[in-house]
Amino acid sequence: MFDCIAIIGVGLIGGSVALAAKKNRLCKAVVGSGRNERELQRAVQLGVIDRYEMDIGEAVKEADLVLIAVPLSAFSDVFQQIKGKCRQGVIITDAGSAKACVVKEAKNIFGTLPAGLVPGHPIAGTEKSGVQAAFAELFERRCTIITPLASSADEAVAALTAFWQGCGANVVSMEVAHHDEVLAATSHLPHVLAYALVDSLAQMHERVEIFRYAAGGFRDFTRIASSSPVMWRDICMANKEAVLDVLEQYKKQLDIVSQAIAENDASELEAIFCRAKKARDEHVVS
Amino acid sequence: MFDCIAIIGVGLIGGSVALAAKKNRLCKAVVGSGRNERELQRAVQLGVIDRYEMDIGEAVKEADLVLIAVPLSAFSDVFQQIKGKCRQGVIITDAGSAKACVVKEAKNIFGTLPAGLVPGHPIAGTEKSGVQAAFAELFERRCTIITPLASSADEAVAALTAFWQGCGANVVSMEVAHHDEVLAATSHLPHVLAYALVDSLAQMHERVEIFRYAAGGFRDFTRIASSSPVMWRDICMANKEAVLDVLEQYKKQLDIVSQAIAENDASELEAIFCRAKKARDEHVVS
Repeated sequence: MFDCIAIIGVGLIGGSVALAAKKNRLCKAVVGSGRNERELQRAVQLGVIDRYEMDIGEAVKEADLVLIAVPLSAFSDVFQQIKGKCRQGVIITDAGSAKACVVKEAKNIFGTLPAGLVPGHPIAGTEKSGVQAAFAELFERRCTIITPLASSADEAVAALTAFWQGCGANVVSMEVAHHDEVLAATSHLPHVLAYALVDSLAQMHERVEIFRYAAGGFRDFTRIASSSPVMWRDICMANKEAVLDVLEQYKKQLDIVSQAIAENDASELEAIFCRAKKARDEHVVS
Repeated sequence: MFDCIAIIGVGLIGGSVALAAKKNRLCKAVVGSGRNERELQRAVQLGVIDRYEMDIGEAVKEADLVLIAVPLSAFSDVFQQIKGKCRQGVIITDAGSAKACVVKEAKNIFGTLPAGLVPGHPIAGTEKSGVQAAFAELFERRCTIITPLASSADEAVAALTAFWQGCGANVVSMEVAHHDEVLAATSHLPHVLAYALVDSLAQMHERVEIFRYAAGGFRDFTRIASSSPVMWRDICMANKEAVLDVLEQYKKQLDIVSQAIAENDASELEAIFCRAKKARDEHVVS
């Protein structure tokens, strides 16, 4: 389908896109780029990408699809480097966990938004980082959200949709702002809560002992606190308003729970726990 | 090792103890009791217990080990019913997630604490409830905390330790108060946080949609919100002081995170996330 895909940032997500594209015969060649040459060498050794270029402009020049999968704080620099280097008709997309900030950076750098720019976000990942954690099936039966812009060409949207479907994903189209609100609630907030919990416990004097008696529930609950701190720092800053909104709402909810416990309000506490269990059992597939 | 074990409350934990005792040949017979006759019938059908008695006093009269695995709010009633009904030399233990409240109820009912009373807490479980979720290997390579009292007979402590070891558990002995603090941090608090998150999201207007885009991280993070609401209501009320303490500490930590995001303090945010990742990767086996 594509002759050449350029992947900027060949980590867990970028590497998995490369593997999925190859496995599903969605492209002839994948060229990688990024800041860390060792990682790129490893990506070649692992058969994830065919070759790499340290110069991003060089990497994108033959590509008909460019996928940017770097931390959000690096987007500005990547846009700067690909500006004026891409082929006519190139599709530019990304895997960033927040979308308004990506569009804002693109406007800053490109001036007029390119017709080939269709931001996206595969809702998939693990707590692992790096190309060695990549696998071709990461996106199968997962959602990939795309957020086409007013400036996006219909053919670019259609081709990107087909690409992600080819990787096994369910593609959903959404407004940029709506994406950022939904993801703040279901992804960014949980990460913040898990990091805050583990750091809070790590500061207790019983530190090592506390973790020693942690059961399976704690392991699952805190798994996301093993995710990349830099990536999540960037996401929290990039999606600041939405994250602060849901965080504020969550703190109010915690106050209600605290109060119910403090006042021995068993029925209020049970009502909250029951509503939560019902919502999770109904809406989240275990 | 035991002739007859009486299990009061044959759910996930009680049922798994019965199965583990049989699998590891730690007893000749298991008699169950509880409030729900259907569940007890099912437990017999599943081969989890040998027989059941609806009358708790009847269930314990032949037993040389009594294990109480009911929600914490039911302990008072259970103690009332077994008082004066047990054999001489019986060991009485439990699987309650908080321990000071169990000792307090026992004092209230028995007056003098029985020498055979050795409270305990297997640090194991899943988000599932009920005897159909029980399995013999639940305690293998998991911690079981026992909290022997000044009144506990040495032989009772030794026999209970051997029993849990026979079930495959690593047995750790701990003061009652210390148990309640450690578990508030590593187990009770995470459950409260997960319930609060899911309920908070369920109240948002995008409800169904929000859950639809939840990825694997959210699933893991909220798994414990599928646990029994009644059981966790009881735990929060029973271990009230310790839970409120860690909840307060956690809310302060969230304020620090909020502030860092609001003030674009990237280095503070990264420091928190890094400390958390390091602590989890070091101390929690995935």
